[in-house]
Amino acid sequence: MLSVVFVAGLLIFTLSSAYFYAIGKNKNGLNSAFLVSFITLISYVLMWQGDFTVTTQTGESIFWTRWLFYGLSCTLLMYEIAQLKQIQGQALVQLLYLTAIVMFAGFLAARDLSVVRWVHFTISAVAYVLLVSKVLSVKTAESHWVRSYIFFGWTAFPIVFALAPTGLGLIGAAVANLLYLVLDIYTKIVFNLQLERTS
Amino acid sequence: MLSVVFVAGLLIFTLSSAYFYAIGKNKNGLNSAFLVSFITLISYVLMWQGDFTVTTQTGESIFWTRWLFYGLSCTLLMYEIAQLKQIQGQALVQLLYLTAIVMFAGFLAARDLSVVRWVHFTISAVAYVLLVSKVLSVKTAESHWVRSYIFFGWTAFPIVFALAPTGLGLIGAAVANLLYLVLDIYTKIVFNLQLERTS
Amino acid sequence: MLSVVFVAGLLIFTLSSAYFYAIGKNKNGLNSAFLVSFITLISYVLMWQGDFTVTTQTGESIFWTRWLFYGLSCTLLMYEIAQLKQIQGQALVQLLYLTAIVMFAGFLAARDLSVVRWVHFTISAVAYVLLVSKVLSVKTAESHWVRSYIFFGWTAFPIVFALAPTGLGLIGAAVANLLYLVLDIYTKIVFNLQLERTS
Repeated sequence: MLSVVFVAGLLIFTLSSAYFYAIGKNKNGLNSAFLVSFITLISYVLMWQGDFTVTTQTGESIFWTRWLFYGLSCTLLMYEIAQLKQIQGQALVQLLYLTAIVMFAGFLAARDLSVVRWVHFTISAVAYVLLVSKVLSVKTAESHWVRSYIFFGWTAFPIVFALAPTGLGLIGAAVANLLYLVLDIYTKIVFNLQLERTS
Repeated sequence: MLSVVFVAGLLIFTLSSAYFYAIGKNKNGLNSAFLVSFITLISYVLMWQGDFTVTTQTGESIFWTRWLFYGLSCTLLMYEIAQLKQIQGQALVQLLYLTAIVMFAGFLAARDLSVVRWVHFTISAVAYVLLVSKVLSVKTAESHWVRSYIFFGWTAFPIVFALAPTGLGLIGAAVANLLYLVLDIYTKIVFNLQLERTS
Repeated sequence: MLSVVFVAGLLIFTLSSAYFYAIGKNKNGLNSAFLVSFITLISYVLMWQGDFTVTTQTGESIFWTRWLFYGLSCTLLMYEIAQLKQIQGQALVQLLYLTAIVMFAGFLAARDLSVVRWVHFTISAVAYVLLVSKVLSVKTAESHWVRSYIFFGWTAFPIVFALAPTGLGLIGAAVANLLYLVLDIYTKIVFNLQLERTS
């Protein structure tokens, strides 16, 4: 089951990489939609391959590399959001640092099987609240759909994290990774398709 | 003893994170004082938790993750110093690269129990001398206190490193980590308080 | 044999670091020639020391850290190439991301002894083709020698990778690392000497 999810992710992000590369080919700039998909593709290959995991006492695998790759892809997504909201310069750098901290503390929380993982989780959550409150405080015409994108897309990740074997263990690794795949598609592909339509 | 030091660090940097966040809340830019404290907080949680260490033949623990976190926090501090001295553009990038190299070679030296660690230490020290000579060659009105801050704050780290189990082993892990905590407070909190007063 | 190659690399890049530092000393900017040599020096110390390797079934050592260091040094080299070709802003950021992805996927391919390494290799190769086609599509007066530098210098790396124990295993670790050393000298020292002469 797990490997089906990862193969599905691998194929979907191969296709989205190819698509976003093709439509951005003649633009001369930063093709972040392509880079986000391409980085996520590598992340799925690595999870499919199966090294770099830890196993909980109940025998569930935790693929902690996911959160390191989010550190790379989500800073790019945050850069895209910041552009929409015309956040630049030092304020932008602040958002990118906070995004990286959220994901890095998430990686530490995922890798740690002891109760200390909740400390890492709390730190990640605090950074996330600071990040989101900063981003949403800047209101522009595009705010409306970006606001719901962040609320329903990004915020779902820590909820899955808390329910999965990384947290309370109420859902298993297979279900958790399936949910992450759905969220990855929404936040990294659907978002960029929407962005393309509105720009 | 060690865990007391780490819990103290954890609490102190939680407080300083909250303080620097609060006073910078309404400024719209890069709140590097907050980010430095927040990154250091994560570093202390990780050392308190105790994974990612190596143990010397004499049974002393070396917490090598410290130096990777310094790679993140000290590039931010160097950015602050560069701003004071109005160093920008490519010259600033050079300083940030050198700072990152100092800390990364320091990480390699800390992690390595063989005699080769002195090669890593030497490389780190050479990069540090190049860095400091570059920074101090730029003289501005603020130079005076920044100069003594770097000499007494930053330069004390490699001295502790050389005396600690990472080097000659003349002092133990507990004393070394206590000294690092004092230096962390001086270079990352006192410095930023001073910066705030003068700006 | 292997350790001779690494000691040779270590010495050569110590000398080139010193040389590039000396000639760039009075320029006030980013001394990328020096930084590239210095980063490569650290890489050779680490390979000489011998930690962080994996061993193939045929008993050959793979020094996968090499590719992580290339991620740092080659982004600097790409920055230099981009300056020659007057590529700036977002287009430059795109090139740096692609360069980092090439090397990071190369690291994953080097570290992985299973057949999945060819998936990582393919991803790295795709990123490399996209990178090179982008760089070579920008034509300037300097294009000619840079073009042959990239074709004969950079492109030789994945060929050695495919022939070495990281790939088909047609050549041994000693020969592979000797070839890498020659390529490192060409792409990181000779290139920067040439750059210095033409600027």
